Formats: sequence, structure tokens, C-alpha cells
Amino acid sequence: MQDQLSRTFSALADPTRRAMLARLSNGEANVSDLAQPFLGAMSLPAVTKHLQVLEKAGLITKTRNAQWRSCKLNGDGLKDAANWMEQYRVFWEESFDRLDAYLKTVTAKQPPEGDESV
Amino acid sequence: MQDQLSRTFSALADPTRRAMLARLSNGEANVSDLAQPFLGAMSLPAVTKHLQVLEKAGLITKTRNAQWRSCKLNGDGLKDAANWMEQYRVFWEESFDRLDAYLKTVTAKQPPEGDESV
Repeated sequence: MQDQLSRTFSALADPTRRAMLARLSNGEANVSDLAQPFLGAMSLPAVTKHLQVLEKAGLITKTRNAQWRSCKLNGDGLKDAANWMEQYRVFWEESFDRLDAYLKTVTAKQPPEGDESV
Repeated sequence: MQDQLSRTFSALADPTRRAMLARLSNGEANVSDLAQPFLGAMSLPAVTKHLQVLEKAGLITKTRNAQWRSCKLNGDGLKDAANWMEQYRVFWEESFDRLDAYLKTVTAKQPPEGDESV
């Protein structure tokens, strides 16, 4: 069985599912409204499958009332994955610092502005 | 073909690969040292496969010299995924705020400390 963190990352590893989360970040939506933009490129069962993956990963919650089924983003579902990621922040900031230092040395070698005719 | 962000999340969706990244966050390692802790549970080709997934996702870089092949964490490879995640931060902080507000109302209903005998 897949662990929770793997399930989260696995659910995020698809552009359709990320687009669905982006849509839900603007607010709750019922399943058919959420499915609509994807129906040109895939079948309704395929859309439903993507929603199930997101739901199993705890990234969305579905509610059902008399009229329709509604989906909602579950921010908590992203928290552990974001925290995992955060511990590596130092590694990309480090490489940004190196780039920044390099750019400073390059810029220092340029002649000052307005000095082109010298 | 998988997009870059999907490739990153997909690479992270496995506890062995995350453990390898955690090991590399302590510094460069050669392939056999990196493989060693996993060889009880899986074969060397399986370990190598995991390293290839990490490399293709841009999360590690391999260098080869006369004596050995060395692996290094590539922090930059995580940056886009972390940035993607960051835009959803408001959603888990929001639900934390709601929990916090709820806990405050619950605590407010408790009798003050040392008041048990009243």
C-alpha cells in the first residue's frame, strides 16, 4: 500500500489533476462544472477517475446533497507534502546565491553606463 | 511525454527515492554507498532504476570520474514544485486558523485552572 506522502505526490503528478485543483482554489464546484473544460480531451469516466485520485489523496473532499455532488479543495492535504519540500529549500536558495554572486562579478566587469565612447 | 512538474512529483512519489534525497541532503555520495541501505529490501538494478528516475526528473546529478560515480542533490530541481505548492499555502493556513479559533472557543468554556473544587 502506498504511504500518504507518496499518494499526495502521485496525485499531483498529472497536469489535469493540477488544473482541477487550480479551478477549486477559486471555490467549490459541482462535478459537472469541474469536468466541463476537460471533456473535449477525455471522457467523463476519465475525468471521474482523476477526481477519485484527488479524493483518495485527501486533496479534495466531495459532498453530496439532493441536487448535485460538490467538490472542495482540501488545503490540509497539501500540508505534509509542502513541509517535506520545505526542508530542501536551502538547496535551491544556495544555488540561487551562487548565481547571484556570479552575476555580480560579471556586472562588475562591465564598463559603467555612458562610458561607451572611452 | 510527461511535463517537467509531473516528472518531479512523480519522482517524489516513492519512499525509497525520498530516502535517497534525504541521504544526499547530507552531502554527495557514490552510487554504491547510496545503494547500500536499500540492498536488503531490493536488488541493485532496482536501486539503479530509482536513481535514474531521480536523475531524469533533475533532482540529482551524477558525475563520473576515474574511480567512481558520484551523486549530488540538485536543489534547483525542486524549486518549481515548491513554488507550485506555495500558491496553495493559504488553504492549509486557513484551515489551521479555523482550528485555532475553534480551540479558543473550547478553551474559553473550560473552568480556570485551580478552580476544580468550585
